[in-house]
Amino acid sequence: MNIGIIGLGLIGGSISLGLRKYNFGDKFLGIDSNKENAIHAIKLGIVDKIISFQDLILQSSVIILSIPVDRIKKILPIILNKISNDTIILDTGSTKYEICNSVYSHPKRSRFVATHPIAGVENSGPEYAHSDLFHKKNCILCDSELSDPDALFLVEKIYSIMDMRMIYITSKEHDFYISYVSHLPHVVSFSLASTVLEKFKNKKKIFNNMRGSGLDSTTRLAKSKTETWLPIFISNKNNLIQAMDVYIDHLKIFRKYLRKKEFHQIDRYIKKANDIK
Amino acid sequence: MNIGIIGLGLIGGSISLGLRKYNFGDKFLGIDSNKENAIHAIKLGIVDKIISFQDLILQSSVIILSIPVDRIKKILPIILNKISNDTIILDTGSTKYEICNSVYSHPKRSRFVATHPIAGVENSGPEYAHSDLFHKKNCILCDSELSDPDALFLVEKIYSIMDMRMIYITSKEHDFYISYVSHLPHVVSFSLASTVLEKFKNKKKIFNNMRGSGLDSTTRLAKSKTETWLPIFISNKNNLIQAMDVYIDHLKIFRKYLRKKEFHQIDRYIKKANDIK
Repeated sequence: MNIGIIGLGLIGGSISLGLRKYNFGDKFLGIDSNKENAIHAIKLGIVDKIISFQDLILQSSVIILSIPVDRIKKILPIILNKISNDTIILDTGSTKYEICNSVYSHPKRSRFVATHPIAGVENSGPEYAHSDLFHKKNCILCDSELSDPDALFLVEKIYSIMDMRMIYITSKEHDFYISYVSHLPHVVSFSLASTVLEKFKNKKKIFNNMRGSGLDSTTRLAKSKTETWLPIFISNKNNLIQAMDVYIDHLKIFRKYLRKKEFHQIDRYIKKANDIK
Repeated sequence: MNIGIIGLGLIGGSISLGLRKYNFGDKFLGIDSNKENAIHAIKLGIVDKIISFQDLILQSSVIILSIPVDRIKKILPIILNKISNDTIILDTGSTKYEICNSVYSHPKRSRFVATHPIAGVENSGPEYAHSDLFHKKNCILCDSELSDPDALFLVEKIYSIMDMRMIYITSKEHDFYISYVSHLPHVVSFSLASTVLEKFKNKKKIFNNMRGSGLDSTTRLAKSKTETWLPIFISNKNNLIQAMDVYIDHLKIFRKYLRKKEFHQIDRYIKKANDIK
Protein backbone atom coordinates (compact mmCIF):
# COMPACT_ATOMS: atom_id res chain seq x y z
CA MET A 1 0.00 0.00 0.00
CA ASN A 2 1.47 3.31 -1.11
CA ILE A 3 0.99 6.42 1.00
CA GLY A 4 0.78 9.81 -0.69
CA ILE A 5 1.51 12.86 1.43
CA ILE A 6 0.62 16.35 0.29
CA GLY A 7 2.53 18.76 2.52
CA LEU A 8 5.85 17.49 3.87
CA GLY A 9 6.15 19.74 6.91
CA LEU A 10 6.12 18.94 10.61
CA ILE A 11 2.82 17.05 10.59
CA GLY A 12 3.04 15.24 7.24
CA GLY A 13 6.69 14.44 7.88
CA SER A 14 6.01 13.09 11.36
CA ILE A 15 3.15 10.87 10.18
CA SER A 16 5.42 9.38 7.54
CA LEU A 17 8.32 8.81 9.94
CA GLY A 18 5.92 7.41 12.54
CA LEU A 19 4.42 4.91 10.08
CA ARG A 20 7.78 3.90 8.66
CA LYS A 21 9.10 3.23 12.14
CA TYR A 22 6.47 0.48 12.42
CA ASN A 23 6.88 -0.69 8.82
CA PHE A 24 3.43 0.43 7.84
CA GLY A 25 2.98 1.16 4.12
CA ASP A 26 5.12 0.43 1.09
CA LYS A 27 6.22 3.44 -0.90
CA PHE A 28 5.84 6.95 0.50
CA LEU A 29 5.16 9.51 -2.23
CA GLY A 30 5.19 13.23 -1.61
CA ILE A 31 4.41 16.71 -2.84
CA ASP A 32 5.36 20.03 -1.32
CA SER A 33 4.86 23.46 -2.87
CA ASN A 34 8.12 24.49 -1.20
CA LYS A 35 11.02 22.95 -3.16
CA GLU A 36 13.43 23.11 -0.22
CA ASN A 37 10.98 21.20 1.96
CA ALA A 38 10.65 18.58 -0.77
CA ILE A 39 14.43 18.13 -1.01
CA HIS A 40 14.70 17.96 2.77
CA ALA A 41 11.91 15.40 2.95
CA ILE A 42 13.78 13.10 0.59
CA LYS A 43 17.04 13.53 2.48
CA LEU A 44 15.36 12.86 5.83
CA GLY A 45 13.71 9.69 4.55
CA ILE A 46 10.23 11.13 4.93
CA VAL A 47 9.27 10.14 1.38
CA ASP A 48 10.83 7.93 -1.27
CA LYS A 49 9.89 10.10 -4.17
CA ILE A 50 8.57 13.54 -5.05
CA ILE A 51 6.03 13.11 -7.80
CA SER A 52 3.38 15.05 -9.67
CA PHE A 53 -0.08 15.66 -8.25
CA GLN A 54 -1.57 13.46 -10.95
CA ASP A 55 0.78 10.55 -10.23
CA LEU A 56 0.36 10.83 -6.48
CA ILE A 57 -3.40 10.41 -6.84
CA LEU A 58 -3.01 7.47 -9.22
CA GLN A 59 -0.38 5.63 -7.21
CA SER A 60 -1.53 6.16 -3.59
CA SER A 61 -4.02 4.04 -1.68
CA VAL A 62 -4.08 6.58 1.12
CA ILE A 63 -3.66 10.31 0.57
CA ILE A 64 -2.76 12.51 3.54
CA LEU A 65 -3.43 16.24 3.34
CA SER A 66 -1.10 18.00 5.75
CA ILE A 67 -1.17 21.51 4.34
CA PRO A 68 -2.74 24.78 5.61
CA VAL A 69 -6.51 24.57 6.07
CA ASP A 70 -7.33 27.03 3.27
CA ARG A 71 -5.46 24.82 0.83
CA ILE A 72 -7.07 21.65 2.17
CA LYS A 73 -10.48 23.20 1.54
CA LYS A 74 -9.51 24.02 -2.05
CA ILE A 75 -7.79 20.79 -2.99
CA LEU A 76 -10.00 18.24 -1.23
CA PRO A 77 -12.96 18.39 -3.69
CA ILE A 78 -10.51 18.27 -6.61
CA ILE A 79 -8.91 15.11 -5.25
CA LEU A 80 -12.26 13.50 -4.47
CA ASN A 81 -13.22 14.09 -8.13
CA LYS A 82 -10.20 12.15 -9.27
CA ILE A 83 -9.72 9.22 -6.89
CA SER A 84 -10.84 5.64 -7.33
CA ASN A 85 -13.55 4.16 -5.13
CA ASP A 86 -10.93 2.46 -2.96
CA THR A 87 -8.67 5.38 -2.25
CA ILE A 88 -8.82 6.90 1.21
CA ILE A 89 -8.13 10.56 1.97
CA LEU A 90 -7.51 12.10 5.35
CA ASP A 91 -6.61 15.62 6.35
CA THR A 92 -4.88 16.88 9.47
CA GLY A 93 -6.14 20.48 9.54
CA SER A 94 -6.62 22.42 12.79
CA THR A 95 -10.14 23.48 11.83
CA LYS A 96 -12.70 20.98 10.61
CA TYR A 97 -16.11 22.53 9.99
CA GLU A 98 -15.37 24.44 6.77
CA ILE A 99 -13.38 21.55 5.34
CA CYS A 100 -16.12 19.02 6.07
CA ASN A 101 -18.73 21.43 4.79
CA SER A 102 -16.90 21.96 1.51
CA VAL A 103 -17.38 18.30 0.54
CA TYR A 104 -20.59 17.53 2.43
CA SER A 105 -22.56 16.75 -0.74
CA HIS A 106 -19.69 15.35 -2.76
CA PRO A 107 -20.52 11.87 -4.19
CA LYS A 108 -17.18 10.57 -2.88
CA ARG A 109 -17.46 12.25 0.57
CA SER A 110 -17.35 8.86 2.27
CA ARG A 111 -13.77 8.22 1.13
CA PHE A 112 -12.65 11.17 3.24
CA VAL A 113 -11.84 11.08 6.97
CA ALA A 114 -11.52 14.43 8.77
CA THR A 115 -8.89 14.31 11.52
CA HIS A 116 -6.96 16.61 13.80
CA PRO A 117 -3.99 15.06 15.57
CA ILE A 118 -3.36 17.30 18.61
CA ALA A 119 0.39 17.54 18.36
CA GLY A 120 1.62 20.71 16.71
CA VAL A 121 4.50 22.77 18.00
CA GLU A 122 5.64 26.28 17.13
CA ASN A 123 8.33 24.95 14.79
CA SER A 124 7.46 23.93 11.27
CA GLY A 125 9.09 22.21 8.33
CA PRO A 126 10.29 18.65 7.67
CA GLU A 127 13.48 19.23 9.68
CA TYR A 128 11.38 19.24 12.87
CA ALA A 129 9.44 16.10 11.94
CA HIS A 130 10.03 13.06 14.11
CA SER A 131 8.55 9.62 14.43
CA ASP A 132 7.32 10.09 18.01
CA LEU A 133 5.52 13.42 17.61
CA PHE A 134 2.12 11.77 18.04
CA HIS A 135 3.07 9.27 20.72
CA LYS A 136 0.40 9.16 23.49
CA LYS A 137 -1.37 12.21 22.07
CA ASN A 138 -5.03 12.52 21.13
CA CYS A 139 -6.40 12.51 17.61
CA ILE A 140 -9.80 14.09 17.00
CA LEU A 141 -11.91 12.43 14.29
CA CYS A 142 -14.80 14.53 13.07
CA ASP A 143 -18.16 13.62 11.54
CA SER A 144 -16.82 10.09 11.29
CA GLU A 145 -20.30 8.69 10.49
CA LEU A 146 -19.92 10.29 7.05
CA SER A 147 -16.84 8.17 6.26
CA ASP A 148 -16.97 4.62 4.91
CA PRO A 149 -16.18 1.98 7.56
CA ASP A 150 -13.10 0.75 5.67
CA ALA A 151 -11.75 4.29 5.34
CA LEU A 152 -12.37 5.04 9.00
CA PHE A 153 -10.83 1.74 10.05
CA LEU A 154 -7.63 2.37 8.12
CA VAL A 155 -7.26 5.92 9.41
CA GLU A 156 -7.78 4.71 12.98
CA LYS A 157 -5.12 2.09 12.31
CA ILE A 158 -2.69 4.71 11.01
CA TYR A 159 -3.04 6.81 14.15
CA SER A 160 -3.13 3.80 16.48
CA ILE A 161 0.18 2.57 15.11
CA MET A 162 1.67 5.86 16.27
CA ASP A 163 0.07 5.24 19.68
CA MET A 164 -2.57 7.95 19.47
CA ARG A 165 -5.91 7.84 21.26
CA MET A 166 -9.01 8.50 19.12
CA ILE A 167 -11.65 11.05 20.11
CA TYR A 168 -14.90 11.35 18.10
CA ILE A 169 -16.86 14.59 17.88
CA THR A 170 -18.65 16.64 15.24
CA SER A 171 -16.68 19.11 13.16
CA LYS A 172 -18.81 21.90 14.60
CA GLU A 173 -18.05 20.95 18.19
CA HIS A 174 -14.40 20.52 17.30
CA ASP A 175 -14.11 24.05 15.98
CA PHE A 176 -15.92 25.53 18.95
CA TYR A 177 -13.80 23.83 21.61
CA ILE A 178 -10.52 24.10 19.75
CA SER A 179 -10.98 27.87 19.47
CA TYR A 180 -10.55 28.01 23.26
CA VAL A 181 -7.79 25.47 23.81
CA SER A 182 -5.64 26.19 20.77
CA HIS A 183 -6.61 29.17 18.63
CA LEU A 184 -7.15 31.59 21.53
CA PRO A 185 -3.78 30.68 23.14
CA HIS A 186 -2.14 31.50 19.82
CA VAL A 187 -3.82 34.91 19.64
CA VAL A 188 -2.91 35.53 23.30
CA SER A 189 0.68 34.73 22.51
CA PHE A 190 0.87 36.76 19.27
CA SER A 191 -0.68 39.75 21.07
CA LEU A 192 1.62 39.52 24.07
CA ALA A 193 4.66 39.31 21.77
CA SER A 194 3.34 42.24 19.78
CA THR A 195 2.85 44.28 22.99
CA VAL A 196 6.32 43.72 24.43
CA LEU A 197 8.10 44.08 21.08
CA GLU A 198 6.42 47.45 20.57
CA LYS A 199 7.23 48.60 24.11
CA PHE A 200 10.90 47.61 23.79
CA LYS A 201 11.23 48.67 20.15
CA ASN A 202 14.33 50.80 20.70
CA LYS A 203 15.36 49.03 23.87
CA LYS A 204 16.50 45.64 22.65
CA LYS A 205 19.32 45.49 25.19
CA ILE A 206 17.21 46.15 28.24
CA PHE A 207 14.61 43.72 26.87
CA ASN A 208 17.13 40.92 26.57
CA ASN A 209 18.51 41.75 30.01
CA MET A 210 15.16 41.48 31.71
CA ARG A 211 13.19 38.80 29.88
CA GLY A 212 12.90 35.51 31.70
CA SER A 213 11.48 32.06 31.17
CA GLY A 214 7.97 33.29 32.02
CA LEU A 215 7.79 35.49 28.95
CA ASP A 216 9.43 32.73 26.89
CA SER A 217 6.72 30.20 27.62
CA THR A 218 3.79 32.61 27.19
CA THR A 219 5.19 33.79 23.84
CA ARG A 220 6.38 30.40 22.58
CA LEU A 221 3.39 30.12 20.23
CA ALA A 222 4.10 33.59 18.83
CA LYS A 223 6.85 31.98 16.77
CA SER A 224 4.21 30.06 14.78
CA LYS A 225 4.05 31.02 11.15
CA THR A 226 1.35 32.98 9.43
CA GLU A 227 1.06 30.51 6.51
CA THR A 228 -0.44 27.99 8.93
CA TRP A 229 -2.22 30.23 11.39
CA LEU A 230 -3.85 32.98 9.38
CA PRO A 231 -5.96 30.42 7.43
CA ILE A 232 -6.93 28.77 10.74
CA PHE A 233 -8.04 32.09 12.24
CA ILE A 234 -10.00 32.95 9.09
CA SER A 235 -11.62 29.53 8.95
CA ASN A 236 -12.65 29.66 12.63
CA LYS A 237 -13.31 33.39 12.74
CA ASN A 238 -16.64 33.43 14.55
CA ASN A 239 -15.70 30.99 17.28
CA LEU A 240 -12.39 32.77 17.78
CA ILE A 241 -13.98 36.21 18.08
CA GLN A 242 -16.34 34.80 20.69
CA ALA A 243 -13.47 33.21 22.62
CA MET A 244 -11.53 36.50 22.44
CA ASP A 245 -14.55 38.37 23.80
CA VAL A 246 -14.69 36.07 26.81
CA TYR A 247 -10.93 36.30 27.35
CA ILE A 248 -10.88 40.10 27.14
CA ASP A 249 -13.75 40.19 29.66
CA HIS A 250 -11.68 38.06 32.04
CA LEU A 251 -8.73 40.43 31.65
CA LYS A 252 -10.98 43.43 32.27
CA ILE A 253 -12.36 41.86 35.44
CA PHE A 254 -8.82 41.36 36.72
CA ARG A 255 -7.95 44.96 35.82
CA LYS A 256 -11.07 46.26 37.55
CA TYR A 257 -10.17 44.39 40.74
CA LEU A 258 -6.69 45.87 40.58
CA ARG A 259 -7.94 49.41 39.95
CA LYS A 260 -10.52 49.21 42.72
CA LYS A 261 -8.04 47.51 45.07
CA GLU A 262 -10.35 44.51 45.48
CA PHE A 263 -7.35 42.35 46.23
CA HIS A 264 -9.27 39.52 47.90
CA GLN A 265 -11.01 39.06 44.53
CA ILE A 266 -7.66 38.79 42.75
CA ASP A 267 -6.64 36.23 45.33
CA ARG A 268 -9.72 34.16 44.43
CA TYR A 269 -9.10 34.70 40.70
CA ILE A 270 -5.53 33.38 40.97
CA LYS A 271 -6.54 30.40 43.11
CA LYS A 272 -9.20 29.41 40.58
CA ALA A 273 -6.72 29.76 37.70
CA ASN A 274 -4.30 27.49 39.60
CA ASP A 275 -6.70 24.63 38.82
CA ILE A 276 -5.26 24.52 35.29
CA LYS A 277 -2.52 22.15 36.45
CA MET B 1 30.98 34.03 57.16
CA ASN B 2 27.48 32.87 58.10
CA ILE B 3 24.61 33.34 55.69
CA GLY B 4 21.09 33.90 57.03
CA ILE B 5 18.21 33.16 54.73
CA ILE B 6 14.70 34.35 55.47
CA GLY B 7 12.37 32.40 53.20
CA LEU B 8 13.52 28.91 52.27
CA GLY B 9 11.53 28.45 49.07
CA LEU B 10 12.63 28.11 45.47
CA ILE B 11 14.73 31.27 45.37
CA GLY B 12 16.23 31.27 48.87
CA GLY B 13 16.83 27.54 48.63
CA SER B 14 18.51 27.79 45.24
CA ILE B 15 20.81 30.62 46.36
CA SER B 16 21.91 28.52 49.30
CA LEU B 17 22.49 25.38 47.23
CA GLY B 18 24.27 27.44 44.58
CA LEU B 19 26.65 29.01 47.10
CA ARG B 20 27.30 25.73 48.90
CA LYS B 21 28.18 24.08 45.61
CA TYR B 22 31.10 26.50 45.34
CA ASN B 23 31.94 26.36 49.06
CA PHE B 24 30.98 29.95 49.63
CA GLY B 25 29.98 30.78 53.21
CA ASP B 26 30.29 28.89 56.48
CA LYS B 27 27.06 28.17 58.29
CA PHE B 28 23.72 28.61 56.57
CA LEU B 29 20.98 29.67 58.97
CA GLY B 30 17.34 29.80 58.03
CA ILE B 31 13.81 30.90 58.85
CA ASP B 32 10.57 30.02 57.14
CA SER B 33 7.06 30.85 58.32
CA ASN B 34 5.97 27.53 56.85
CA LYS B 35 7.13 24.73 59.17
CA GLU B 36 7.08 22.07 56.45
CA ASN B 37 9.32 24.19 54.25
CA ALA B 38 11.72 24.62 57.17
CA ILE B 39 11.87 20.85 57.77
CA HIS B 40 12.36 20.22 54.06
CA ALA B 41 15.10 22.84 53.87
CA ILE B 42 17.07 21.06 56.58
CA LYS B 43 16.58 17.66 54.94
CA LEU B 44 17.64 18.99 51.53
CA GLY B 45 20.80 20.56 52.95
CA ILE B 46 19.63 24.07 52.15
CA VAL B 47 20.39 25.28 55.67
CA ASP B 48 22.25 23.84 58.64
CA LYS B 49 19.91 25.19 61.23
CA ILE B 50 16.50 26.77 61.68
CA ILE B 51 16.87 29.54 64.25
CA SER B 52 14.97 32.46 65.70
CA PHE B 53 14.70 35.80 63.93
CA GLN B 54 16.77 37.40 66.70
CA ASP B 55 19.56 34.82 66.44
CA LEU B 56 19.61 34.91 62.65
CA ILE B 57 20.25 38.66 62.73
CA LEU B 58 22.94 38.33 65.40
CA GLN B 59 24.78 35.42 63.79
CA SER B 60 24.64 36.24 60.05
CA SER B 61 27.09 38.44 58.13
CA VAL B 62 24.80 38.38 55.12
CA ILE B 63 21.01 38.24 55.36
CA ILE B 64 19.02 37.20 52.31
CA LEU B 65 15.34 38.10 52.12
CA SER B 66 13.63 35.67 49.77
CA ILE B 67 10.02 36.08 50.84
CA PRO B 68 7.00 37.71 49.15
CA VAL B 69 7.48 41.41 48.39
CA ASP B 70 4.88 42.64 50.88
CA ARG B 71 6.73 40.86 53.66
CA ILE B 72 10.10 42.17 52.48
CA LYS B 73 8.72 45.70 52.67
CA LYS B 74 7.54 45.12 56.23
CA ILE B 75 10.57 43.31 57.60
CA LEU B 76 13.39 45.20 55.90
CA PRO B 77 13.24 48.35 58.06
CA ILE B 78 12.96 46.21 61.20
CA ILE B 79 16.09 44.29 60.26
CA LEU B 80 17.99 47.45 59.34
CA ASN B 81 17.16 48.77 62.82
CA LYS B 82 18.79 45.76 64.41
CA ILE B 83 21.87 44.90 62.35
CA SER B 84 25.47 45.84 63.01
CA ASN B 85 27.30 48.25 60.72
CA ASP B 86 29.02 45.35 58.95
CA THR B 87 26.01 43.19 58.18
CA ILE B 88 24.80 43.10 54.60
CA ILE B 89 21.17 42.57 53.57
CA LEU B 90 19.89 41.74 50.16
CA ASP B 91 16.42 40.97 48.91
CA THR B 92 15.31 39.02 45.85
CA GLY B 93 11.82 40.50 45.36
CA SER B 94 10.21 40.78 41.93
CA THR B 95 9.30 44.42 42.49
CA LYS B 96 11.84 46.93 43.68
CA TYR B 97 10.48 50.48 43.88
CA GLU B 98 8.27 50.15 46.95
CA ILE B 99 10.89 48.14 48.80
CA CYS B 100 13.64 50.65 48.07
CA ASN B 101 11.31 53.50 48.90
CA SER B 102 10.40 52.00 52.27
CA VAL B 103 13.99 52.37 53.51
CA TYR B 104 15.11 55.35 51.43
CA SER B 105 15.76 57.53 54.48
CA HIS B 106 16.79 54.79 56.86
CA PRO B 107 20.17 55.54 58.52
CA LYS B 108 21.37 52.03 57.60
CA ARG B 109 20.01 52.08 54.01
CA SER B 110 23.51 51.63 52.64
CA ARG B 111 23.82 48.15 54.15
CA PHE B 112 20.98 46.99 51.87
CA VAL B 113 21.35 45.85 48.26
CA ALA B 114 18.15 45.55 46.20
CA THR B 115 18.31 42.68 43.70
CA HIS B 116 16.08 40.68 41.40
CA PRO B 117 17.57 37.48 40.05
CA ILE B 118 15.57 36.70 36.89
CA ALA B 119 15.06 33.01 37.43
CA GLY B 120 11.69 32.11 38.89
CA VAL B 121 9.56 29.28 37.68
CA GLU B 122 5.92 28.41 38.31
CA ASN B 123 6.85 25.89 40.97
CA SER B 124 7.65 27.01 44.47
CA GLY B 125 8.98 25.57 47.69
CA PRO B 126 12.38 24.20 48.77
CA GLU B 127 11.76 20.88 46.98
CA TYR B 128 12.17 22.69 43.64
CA ALA B 129 15.35 24.52 44.67
CA HIS B 130 18.50 23.53 42.85
CA SER B 131 22.06 24.79 42.72
CA ASP B 132 21.98 25.72 39.01
CA LEU B 133 18.76 27.73 38.97
CA PHE B 134 20.67 30.98 38.39
CA HIS B 135 23.30 29.64 36.04
CA LYS B 136 23.84 32.04 33.08
CA LYS B 137 20.81 34.11 34.06
CA ASN B 138 20.65 37.85 34.67
CA CYS B 139 20.47 39.55 38.03
CA ILE B 140 19.06 43.07 38.21
CA LEU B 141 20.62 45.33 40.87
CA CYS B 142 18.62 48.45 41.64
CA ASP B 143 19.61 51.85 42.96
CA SER B 144 23.02 50.35 43.64
CA GLU B 145 24.57 53.77 44.24
CA LEU B 146 22.67 53.82 47.55
CA SER B 147 24.51 50.71 48.78
CA ASP B 148 27.94 50.74 50.44
CA PRO B 149 30.73 49.57 48.10
CA ASP B 150 31.58 46.60 50.36
CA ALA B 151 27.94 45.50 50.47
CA LEU B 152 27.53 45.83 46.74
CA PHE B 153 30.80 44.00 46.11
CA LEU B 154 29.81 41.04 48.24
CA VAL B 155 26.37 40.76 46.69
CA GLU B 156 27.90 40.87 43.21
CA LYS B 157 30.27 38.14 44.33
CA ILE B 158 27.41 35.99 45.60
CA TYR B 159 25.61 36.19 42.27
CA SER B 160 28.81 35.88 40.22
CA ILE B 161 29.69 32.64 41.96
CA MET B 162 26.43 31.25 40.64
CA ASP B 163 27.42 32.49 37.18
CA MET B 164 24.90 35.30 36.92
CA ARG B 165 25.37 38.45 34.89
CA MET B 166 24.74 41.77 36.67
CA ILE B 167 22.46 44.45 35.23
CA TYR B 168 22.19 47.88 36.91
CA ILE B 169 19.09 50.05 36.69
CA THR B 170 16.96 52.19 38.97
CA SER B 171 14.19 50.55 40.98
CA LYS B 172 11.67 52.72 39.13
CA GLU B 173 12.88 51.57 35.70
CA HIS B 174 12.98 47.98 36.94
CA ASP B 175 9.35 48.02 37.97
CA PHE B 176 8.24 49.64 34.73
CA TYR B 177 10.02 47.18 32.42
CA ILE B 178 9.38 44.11 34.52
CA SER B 179 5.65 44.81 34.43
CA TYR B 180 5.79 44.04 30.70
CA VAL B 181 8.19 41.09 30.62
CA SER B 182 7.08 39.28 33.75
CA HIS B 183 3.98 40.62 35.53
CA LEU B 184 1.87 41.02 32.39
CA PRO B 185 2.69 37.48 31.15
CA HIS B 186 1.49 36.18 34.52
CA VAL B 187 -1.81 38.06 34.25
CA VAL B 188 -2.16 36.87 30.64
CA SER B 189 -1.68 33.31 31.80
CA PHE B 190 -3.99 33.54 34.84
CA SER B 191 -6.69 35.09 32.65
CA LEU B 192 -6.36 32.52 29.90
CA ALA B 193 -6.55 29.70 32.44
CA SER B 194 -9.54 31.36 34.05
CA THR B 195 -11.26 31.67 30.63
CA VAL B 196 -10.82 28.06 29.55
CA LEU B 197 -11.58 26.62 32.99
CA GLU B 198 -14.86 28.51 33.06
CA LYS B 199 -15.74 27.46 29.51
CA PHE B 200 -15.04 23.77 30.22
CA LYS B 201 -16.43 23.84 33.76
CA ASN B 202 -18.70 20.83 33.28
CA LYS B 203 -16.74 19.41 30.36
CA LYS B 204 -13.55 18.19 31.99
CA LYS B 205 -13.35 15.15 29.72
CA ILE B 206 -13.60 17.03 26.46
CA PHE B 207 -11.14 19.60 27.81
CA ASN B 208 -8.55 16.95 28.59
CA ASN B 209 -9.16 15.31 25.22
CA MET B 210 -8.53 18.48 23.27
CA ARG B 211 -5.90 20.43 25.18
CA GLY B 212 -2.46 20.38 23.63
CA SER B 213 1.02 21.65 24.36
CA GLY B 214 0.09 25.13 23.11
CA LEU B 215 -2.33 25.71 25.96
CA ASP B 216 0.11 24.11 28.37
CA SER B 217 2.87 26.60 27.66
CA THR B 218 0.63 29.68 27.63
CA THR B 219 -0.92 28.66 30.96
CA ARG B 220 2.27 27.40 32.61
CA LEU B 221 2.53 30.58 34.71
CA ALA B 222 -1.09 30.19 35.84
CA LYS B 223 0.16 27.56 38.27
CA SER B 224 2.05 30.26 40.18
CA LYS B 225 0.82 30.82 43.69
CA THR B 226 -1.11 33.77 45.00
CA GLU B 227 1.12 34.18 48.08
CA THR B 228 3.93 35.31 45.79
CA TRP B 229 2.02 36.98 42.98
CA LEU B 230 -0.77 38.95 44.59
CA PRO B 231 1.75 41.07 46.57
CA ILE B 232 3.73 41.63 43.35
CA PHE B 233 0.62 42.80 41.47
CA ILE B 234 -0.35 45.09 44.36
CA SER B 235 3.12 46.51 44.65
CA ASN B 236 3.39 47.20 40.92
CA LYS B 237 -0.26 48.06 40.42
CA ASN B 238 0.05 51.21 38.33
CA ASN B 239 2.65 49.88 35.91
CA LEU B 240 0.72 46.65 35.55
CA ILE B 241 -2.58 48.40 34.80
CA GLN B 242 -0.80 50.41 32.12
CA ALA B 243 0.76 47.28 30.61
CA MET B 244 -2.65 45.56 30.66
CA ASP B 245 -4.19 48.56 28.87
CA VAL B 246 -1.63 48.29 26.09
CA TYR B 247 -2.06 44.51 25.84
CA ILE B 248 -5.87 44.70 25.72
CA ASP B 249 -5.54 47.32 22.97
CA HIS B 250 -3.36 44.92 20.96
CA LEU B 251 -5.95 42.17 21.40
CA LYS B 252 -8.72 44.51 20.32
CA ILE B 253 -6.80 45.50 17.19
CA PHE B 254 -6.43 41.83 16.29
CA ARG B 255 -10.12 41.25 16.92
CA LYS B 256 -11.06 44.28 14.82
CA TYR B 257 -8.99 42.98 11.88
CA LEU B 258 -10.69 39.62 12.21
CA ARG B 259 -14.19 41.13 12.40
CA LYS B 260 -13.58 43.42 9.45
CA LYS B 261 -11.85 40.65 7.50
CA GLU B 262 -8.69 42.74 7.15
CA PHE B 263 -6.67 39.56 6.88
CA HIS B 264 -3.58 41.16 5.32
CA GLN B 265 -3.31 43.17 8.54
CA ILE B 266 -3.42 39.98 10.63
CA ASP B 267 -0.71 38.59 8.38
CA ARG B 268 1.48 41.62 9.21
CA TYR B 269 0.57 41.38 12.90
CA ILE B 270 1.68 37.73 13.07
CA LYS B 271 4.88 38.35 11.14
CA LYS B 272 5.83 41.17 13.50
CA ALA B 273 5.07 39.00 16.54
CA ASN B 274 7.32 36.29 15.08
CA ASP B 275 10.26 38.58 15.93
CA ILE B 276 9.98 37.46 19.55
CA LYS B 277 12.27 34.50 18.86
